[in-house]
Amino acid sequence: MIMFKPEERKIRVTRGISIFLAAKEAGVDIRSECDGKGSCGKCKITIKDHKAVNKVSEIEKKHFSPSEINSGFRLACQTTIFQNTKVTIPHESRIGLRKIQIKGLERPVKLDLALKKYNLTLPKPTLSDFRPDLERIFEELSNIINIRGLEIDYTALKKLPDILRNANWNITITIWKDRKIIAIEPGETTKELFGLALDIGTSKIVGYIVDLTTGKTIGIGSVKNPQAIHGEDIMSRIRFATVEDNGLITLQRSAIAGINHVLHEACIKAGIHPSHVYEATVVGNTAMHHFFLAIQPKYMALSPFTPVIKKTISVKASELNIGINSNGVINVLPVIAGFVGSDAVADALATGIHESNELSLLIDIGTNTEVFVGNTEDVLCCSCASGPAFEGAHIKHGIKAETGAIEKITIEPDSFEVKYKTVENAKPIGLCGSSIVDILAEMLKCGIINFQGRFNSKIETPRIRIPNGEKEFVLVWGTETGTGKDIVFTQKDVDEVQLAKAAIFAGCSILIKRKNLEKEHLTRILLAGAFGNFINPENAKIIGLIPDIPTERINFVGNTAVTGAKMALLSMEVMDTADVISNKIRYLELAADPDFAREFAYAWYLPHKDLERFPSISSLLNGIHKN
Amino acid sequence: MIMFKPEERKIRVTRGISIFLAAKEAGVDIRSECDGKGSCGKCKITIKDHKAVNKVSEIEKKHFSPSEINSGFRLACQTTIFQNTKVTIPHESRIGLRKIQIKGLERPVKLDLALKKYNLTLPKPTLSDFRPDLERIFEELSNIINIRGLEIDYTALKKLPDILRNANWNITITIWKDRKIIAIEPGETTKELFGLALDIGTSKIVGYIVDLTTGKTIGIGSVKNPQAIHGEDIMSRIRFATVEDNGLITLQRSAIAGINHVLHEACIKAGIHPSHVYEATVVGNTAMHHFFLAIQPKYMALSPFTPVIKKTISVKASELNIGINSNGVINVLPVIAGFVGSDAVADALATGIHESNELSLLIDIGTNTEVFVGNTEDVLCCSCASGPAFEGAHIKHGIKAETGAIEKITIEPDSFEVKYKTVENAKPIGLCGSSIVDILAEMLKCGIINFQGRFNSKIETPRIRIPNGEKEFVLVWGTETGTGKDIVFTQKDVDEVQLAKAAIFAGCSILIKRKNLEKEHLTRILLAGAFGNFINPENAKIIGLIPDIPTERINFVGNTAVTGAKMALLSMEVMDTADVISNKIRYLELAADPDFAREFAYAWYLPHKDLERFPSISSLLNGIHKN
Repeated sequence: MIMFKPEERKIRVTRGISIFLAAKEAGVDIRSECDGKGSCGKCKITIKDHKAVNKVSEIEKKHFSPSEINSGFRLACQTTIFQNTKVTIPHESRIGLRKIQIKGLERPVKLDLALKKYNLTLPKPTLSDFRPDLERIFEELSNIINIRGLEIDYTALKKLPDILRNANWNITITIWKDRKIIAIEPGETTKELFGLALDIGTSKIVGYIVDLTTGKTIGIGSVKNPQAIHGEDIMSRIRFATVEDNGLITLQRSAIAGINHVLHEACIKAGIHPSHVYEATVVGNTAMHHFFLAIQPKYMALSPFTPVIKKTISVKASELNIGINSNGVINVLPVIAGFVGSDAVADALATGIHESNELSLLIDIGTNTEVFVGNTEDVLCCSCASGPAFEGAHIKHGIKAETGAIEKITIEPDSFEVKYKTVENAKPIGLCGSSIVDILAEMLKCGIINFQGRFNSKIETPRIRIPNGEKEFVLVWGTETGTGKDIVFTQKDVDEVQLAKAAIFAGCSILIKRKNLEKEHLTRILLAGAFGNFINPENAKIIGLIPDIPTERINFVGNTAVTGAKMALLSMEVMDTADVISNKIRYLELAADPDFAREFAYAWYLPHKDLERFPSISSLLNGIHKN
Repeated sequence: MIMFKPEERKIRVTRGISIFLAAKEAGVDIRSECDGKGSCGKCKITIKDHKAVNKVSEIEKKHFSPSEINSGFRLACQTTIFQNTKVTIPHESRIGLRKIQIKGLERPVKLDLALKKYNLTLPKPTLSDFRPDLERIFEELSNIINIRGLEIDYTALKKLPDILRNANWNITITIWKDRKIIAIEPGETTKELFGLALDIGTSKIVGYIVDLTTGKTIGIGSVKNPQAIHGEDIMSRIRFATVEDNGLITLQRSAIAGINHVLHEACIKAGIHPSHVYEATVVGNTAMHHFFLAIQPKYMALSPFTPVIKKTISVKASELNIGINSNGVINVLPVIAGFVGSDAVADALATGIHESNELSLLIDIGTNTEVFVGNTEDVLCCSCASGPAFEGAHIKHGIKAETGAIEKITIEPDSFEVKYKTVENAKPIGLCGSSIVDILAEMLKCGIINFQGRFNSKIETPRIRIPNGEKEFVLVWGTETGTGKDIVFTQKDVDEVQLAKAAIFAGCSILIKRKNLEKEHLTRILLAGAFGNFINPENAKIIGLIPDIPTERINFVGNTAVTGAKMALLSMEVMDTADVISNKIRYLELAADPDFAREFAYAWYLPHKDLERFPSISSLLNGIHKN
């Protein structure tokens, strides 16, 4: 038995289980980025009773000072339990309330559901009315709807006779697309009609539980994509899928495990049972799409980079082992090309760029960033290998946008004093995407780094130091943080962000060029992604992440991939539009573009090697420093 | 290692395995009615090398004389092997070529298949044509057919990219109902398009492999229904399903195991691979229908005897674990009522009684016998619990209609000499349904039994004897038989047949009465069932199995249940008709009919207690004997 403090939740456990797993089982949130491998050091706990657990491991000694070890600090994933004990999970090891981008743009959708529920009270069979159970339902239904061609799912049928009699002939049936009965439930459950909108990102899986009767999001779940242990980026996962025995199946199972985790988390938050989720819409880049469906991704990675399928495919939930109602339907939205997936289609759905007269630049920032330029006449898109820096990964103190994450930051140019705001105003524990943009811009404006992203060695402040041969800037001193340790931004962090922003900006530039446009033609820039907060558009321009156009034309639209998936869940018309979009949007292969390499190299500078492209920024920077 | 003689087939086996199982594994046919339980004594073999096997068991001593045991006779199911040896399977233990009723009526069907195959050669992807694999197929298909709304089965999609490339872009796709791609195969396989028509009988499962391109039956399989070990008759199986833990699932699995056995046997005979069977039609009585689908049969057995579903249901093969192509479709045809199933619907489809102007009496003889009276205006039907006597079961020397089965028999009135004909003109080994009708009629005509079915004690002939207190008539002396033993017909055999025919005749009488008809109104009698040969209609009247109408109006139509299932396989229109029929045919519950008990008691006599109902027979019998 373990008692988790401070909430005093108890759980009976098997001898020898890790506290990390026990916490999971008990439903106690505990932070981890390596999923219990001992590498991230984030699942810190304290235990008073040393005898109840195994000895401190070598791995733990790397993460703690001797005094911390003496105080009972351990890593939950490295600690196995032998006797009843109490475990305290400190605040910094808590997964806070995620701050998720639902404030972003969400275009209104007219509800046009594929699912319908009907509550029926059937006449009981008698000696003069011995109609079969199913025919009884069909005849009752025919008073309400046209049942021509209506079918019933075999597994729904199997349970029918007992349900009818146990429910005293009052039941609720769920019909998909006026075509098939997929569920029969006892009693009146017409209000229990939920859907799941899912985005399988390279780094993260995010899902919304949507109340289909109102169109409202009522629960959100997210998890690190468990495929990451088989490769951080898409190409290494494709290699894993094609080279390793059962590699593809392993990746599919990882995705499914992650999705089911997200589903259950979101259902718990929404206070609903997963069996009342009857439909899901899934988006993801083309590799995630193929992995999820266990479709051979090999040919996608070889010229001419052909995906196996573009159009929407609907699969029964039980065929994919997704934990919604087993007869529910999983709609996997269409992709555009080998490297532009259904997440991009969802971006377009959510923002409507393909049906707007305005000429838009849409950037959906993620581990792979999709960029679109166009309007109702034509949309051109590309995919940039930006890496996960803006999602807080590969950044020393980067974290997800959760409680304690710093979401905004400013640095005083003279004193180098730092002001910040955290999610939920909690003690700071790390940096999320929006503040990472701020930091780079502020360090540049204050002259802490130069336009090549190098630390300025002439500045003297205790905040700049070189602990292990690498320069770093101290953003928050340990006395103020939730972890008790300094939060810093290192030279390597700067490099990561430079690479990411260069990839994205180069993509934008090439698209604008290939559309024969100038940045001045852009009516708006739409910035999408899950950063924790609205990115400061001024700062985005300062670091050269986006073209230098007037700030009032820049809009932050949030997590458009999930929003688009949600719209498709709410409307069959939108779902059909997805297939239209996937054929309409033209794809440009960046790697094959003759100008890409130079554009990328130039964009690596802050904001850019060619300062004429950033007139408003260059004057601003000139006024501040000249080194 | 065992070598089976005379074919000299060798198989490597595990030490301690029974020879019965080894023979199965080696694909060597060996007779059995108890499936290796030691009770039927039909799996006789001889072994010379006593040391290679276990000792003779008590069970075997009951089946063999000491001299037979000395000659090396054993039961294959009781003999386990320890060393290499040779096993001889004598002729009588062989499963002969089954004589199956395909000669019976088979109405021509215009091919109108749900399945279509298309061979496509696709352009290979190039840098200027990087369409996805599936879109490539759809676009090629759109030159041939209207693909609006065409879907693809998820599991068919998964294998697509490798198939395409391994097949050098030449593939054959299978589409179901112009709606869904269910298979994609390398190369040109349009000729490999097969279906399975199945009848799940209470005692026997029979299946035809049909070449869907020609409509011809090309392979037949049959097996004793493996559910029999959980109850011989329907009611005891329903009890098993509702009372035993997992009883229903056990019955479903038994049916599926039996069906897969039939499938593989039929495929081997047809020389085709089961993965090229893409669709099946299944018929069976309502209990078999519910067991097969694992649908709760409890309420079917309780007043008001409501089945759960009537209409046709189509289920993916993999959901039912049927070994045809895993994306194939299993169509379970509609039932009529709690005790009249889809086999009866198939009978109607095959004979067309529901669309004929002729007033027909249709009798499908099986363990449960379905009887229909009617024409295009109205059809009334009932179900009779006739038992399996006419299928050769519960009869001492009864066997299936296979090589060596006596199919016709006559007895000389004076000498009591017996003439017979066997299937394939082999040495006789037992009696099948058609000869069982003959025997009763002949014994009655010769005065060996009286009109109550009792043996006449006054007749003196060595053929009548009382070996164990029970009278029996020797039909064939052991010197002539394939088993070396006499083939006899006992008093108990006579009783069994009397009960069976009484149940059937009572059903016919009640239906005719409830339609306000006389037997003279019947334009024709259609006799269906798998007896081994055409039943002699004269003899059927003599024993009072069917009403006494002129012989030229009596037709033998064979195994109409499978024939009807086959017709539905060949034509979507026929499949639709099945649902129409299942609603049109009216059902009469015999047990609830006030006249049934008396009709049953009277019909127990040979031919009937009321001889006025059999004018042509009573004069015939009067001329022969008067005891």
